[in-house]
Amino acid sequence: MHPNKMHTRSLVKPDGREIHLYSRSQISTGSALGPPRVVPGSHFRWHPLRGEWVAYASHRQNRTFLPPPDWNPLRPSDDPAHLTELPVGDYEVAVFDNLFPTLSADPGALPPTSIVATDRGLGAAEVVVFTQDPQGSLGRLTVDHMALIFEVWADRTRALGARQPIAYVMPFENRGAEVGVTLNHPHGQIYAFPFIPPIPARELAESLAHFRAHGRGLLKDHIEAELADGRRTLYASESAAAFVPVCARYAYEVWVAPRRPIPDFAALTASERVELARALKTVLLKYDGLWGRPFPYVMVIHQAPTDGAEHPEAHLHIELYPPYRMAGRLKYLAGCELGAGMFTADTLPEDKAAELRAVEVSLD
Amino acid sequence: MHPNKMHTRSLVKPDGREIHLYSRSQISTGSALGPPRVVPGSHFRWHPLRGEWVAYASHRQNRTFLPPPDWNPLRPSDDPAHLTELPVGDYEVAVFDNLFPTLSADPGALPPTSIVATDRGLGAAEVVVFTQDPQGSLGRLTVDHMALIFEVWADRTRALGARQPIAYVMPFENRGAEVGVTLNHPHGQIYAFPFIPPIPARELAESLAHFRAHGRGLLKDHIEAELADGRRTLYASESAAAFVPVCARYAYEVWVAPRRPIPDFAALTASERVELARALKTVLLKYDGLWGRPFPYVMVIHQAPTDGAEHPEAHLHIELYPPYRMAGRLKYLAGCELGAGMFTADTLPEDKAAELRAVEVSLD
Repeated sequence: MHPNKMHTRSLVKPDGREIHLYSRSQISTGSALGPPRVVPGSHFRWHPLRGEWVAYASHRQNRTFLPPPDWNPLRPSDDPAHLTELPVGDYEVAVFDNLFPTLSADPGALPPTSIVATDRGLGAAEVVVFTQDPQGSLGRLTVDHMALIFEVWADRTRALGARQPIAYVMPFENRGAEVGVTLNHPHGQIYAFPFIPPIPARELAESLAHFRAHGRGLLKDHIEAELADGRRTLYASESAAAFVPVCARYAYEVWVAPRRPIPDFAALTASERVELARALKTVLLKYDGLWGRPFPYVMVIHQAPTDGAEHPEAHLHIELYPPYRMAGRLKYLAGCELGAGMFTADTLPEDKAAELRAVEVSLD
Repeated sequence: MHPNKMHTRSLVKPDGREIHLYSRSQISTGSALGPPRVVPGSHFRWHPLRGEWVAYASHRQNRTFLPPPDWNPLRPSDDPAHLTELPVGDYEVAVFDNLFPTLSADPGALPPTSIVATDRGLGAAEVVVFTQDPQGSLGRLTVDHMALIFEVWADRTRALGARQPIAYVMPFENRGAEVGVTLNHPHGQIYAFPFIPPIPARELAESLAHFRAHGRGLLKDHIEAELADGRRTLYASESAAAFVPVCARYAYEVWVAPRRPIPDFAALTASERVELARALKTVLLKYDGLWGRPFPYVMVIHQAPTDGAEHPEAHLHIELYPPYRMAGRLKYLAGCELGAGMFTADTLPEDKAAELRAVEVSLD
C-alpha cells in the first residue's frame, strides 16, 4: 500500500455502463457485471417564474429491477445468479453509472416541444461506493481512505467536466432514512449538469461581487473571520477548517473547507488533502458521537464550474445539512423555507456548535 | 348573513397581542384571552454565500407553555382555567399574533455585532384560524367562506404592509404531519418580512424581465398557454385557473390564480374572488379525493410586495407543494434539490394532472 498513490481501473458493464475502481494498492478484479440498464429518457423543462431547469426522469418510476428490501446491490459479487453492481476484487472505492439516471450521456430523443423550453436530460448521475464494507460509514474510514475519496472526486470531476456540455459537477451524499435513503451501504453520488445549477450559481455570483470589490475571496474572508471568532469552530489547522457557520440555515449545519481559496479537489496538495480529510472526519465523528447513533445529513460539495470560464471567485467547500434541530426532532421545511426562501431557526449556531465541540473524537 | 359583506372586530389580548375576528354576520364576542406571550427575541443574520437573511428565534425553543398533545389552543373558549387563543363568539375567521413569533413588531434589542451583518427580527407572524370547526378543512369550507378568507388575507396584507419596514406579506398554510404540522384545527399563517424574500424576489425579477421585453405579464402569458394546452388544467373559468404547471417541481404541484394580472387579494372583484375560491376549492377537494384521505401540502401565496414601489410585473397566485410523489411515497428533498437547487421528478406533470383530473368533485 502506498499512501498518496492512486491506482485506477475502468471497466464496462455488459449494458455499456462504466465502472471505475480506485485503490492505494494494485487492483485485481474479475469482470464487471450488474443488472441491465433501464433505457433512460430524461428531459429538462424550463420553469419560467423561477428561471431554472427542472429534470424529469419518468423511467425511474417504471423500475423493472425491484430487489427485496434487504438486498444490497453495492456489495461485491461475482455470482451471476445474484448480480450486484460491484465486482469482487481488491479495490477500495468504486464509481459507476446509476442504473436509473436522472441525467445521462444518452438521455434519449429530444422531448416534444412544449409551452416552455425543453431539452434532453444530458449530464451524468454516478454512484460512488465509499468502501466494500457495508457496515462502514464515510466518517469511520481512515483519513487516508477519505483522502483517496477526495482524489476519486477530483478524478471524476475532471472526467465528467471534460465532457460536452457539462458545466458543473457536484459530488454529494444523502445519509439516513430521514433524508430518504433506503440503502445503508456507504455511498454517495455525483451529478454532472449541463448548466451551473441555481444554488452554486448564487454562491458564485455573491463571491464574484466580493472578489471584484475587495480582490479577495468571499469564503476565504469568511473562514478567517470564523476562525478568529472561534466560538463555532470544530476543526482548525494550517490548511483546513470546519465550523458551524454563523448564518447556519440548518441547526447542525457545518462547512468544511481548505483555507486556501482553491477551485476544486484536483487543486489540493497531498498534505492539504490529508488535512481536509481530518477536518471532515472530525465533523462526521462528532455528528455520530452527539447522540450515539448514525447522524443523518445531506452533504454537498461546491467546486468551480467546468464551463471553461475562469472562476477566480470559486473556493472548494463541503456543506453539511443535517435534518434534526434537536434530539428526536426534525426540522421540516415548510411554507417559509419552501415558499419564501427564508430559513428560520429556533436554535442559535453558537449553541449547536457548543454541543458539537463538546463531543470528543479520535482521528486515529 | 350578507355574502360579500365583511364584518370585522379587533381585540387586544391581556399580553398585548392583537386578535382580529371576521364574519359575514354581525360579530358578538367576549373578551380576548390567551396564554401570556413569551418575550420574543428574534434576529436576522446575513448569509454571505447565498446573499440572503436567516431568521433566529431561539425563544421558540424555550416554550414555557407546553400543552398536552391533544390540547387544541385554536378552539374557542372563555374558561379562564382552560385558556385557548380564541374567544367564544359569532365569527368565522380569526387572526392573531403567534405566541412564539419568528418575526414580530417588538423583537427585542439590536443583536450584538457579528462577523456577518445582523438586524432585529422585525416583521410579523400571525395565525389565521380558518373556521371554528376543529374537524373542518380549508377545502371543505363553503365557497363564500373561502372568499371571506381571501378578504381576510387582503385585510391583513393591507394592515401589515402599511407598517414600517414591511416589504412583503406572505399568507401560507402547512397541512399535515408530513410537513411538520401537529395541530389539526384548520389554520394557516401570515409572515410579514422587512425585505422581499428570495423566492418571491426571484419570481418578480423573472416577471419584470418578461414584462419589459414583451409588455405583458409572465404568469399571465403562462396561464393562457396552460389553458390553451389544456392537458394539465384542473379548473378554468372566465376569471380563474388552476393547473399542474408544465414545470412542476413537486409531483402534485398546482398553481391557482386569477387570469387577470392583478397584484394582490385586495384587487380582486367580488366575482373574481368567488371564482378564485371555486378554483382553489376544486383543487383541494381533488387532493383529498385522490386517495380518500386528507392530502398534505404546503400552500404559499405570492402577491405584489408592499415596499411602496410600483410592481406592474406582479400577479397574485397560489402555489401548492404536496410532499407525496405517489400514494404512500414521499419525495425527499436531498442533495440535488437542497445542494444544487435543481428539482428532479420521476413522474410527469401530465400524468399527475390526469390523476387529479379524474377525481370528481362537487362545489355545492
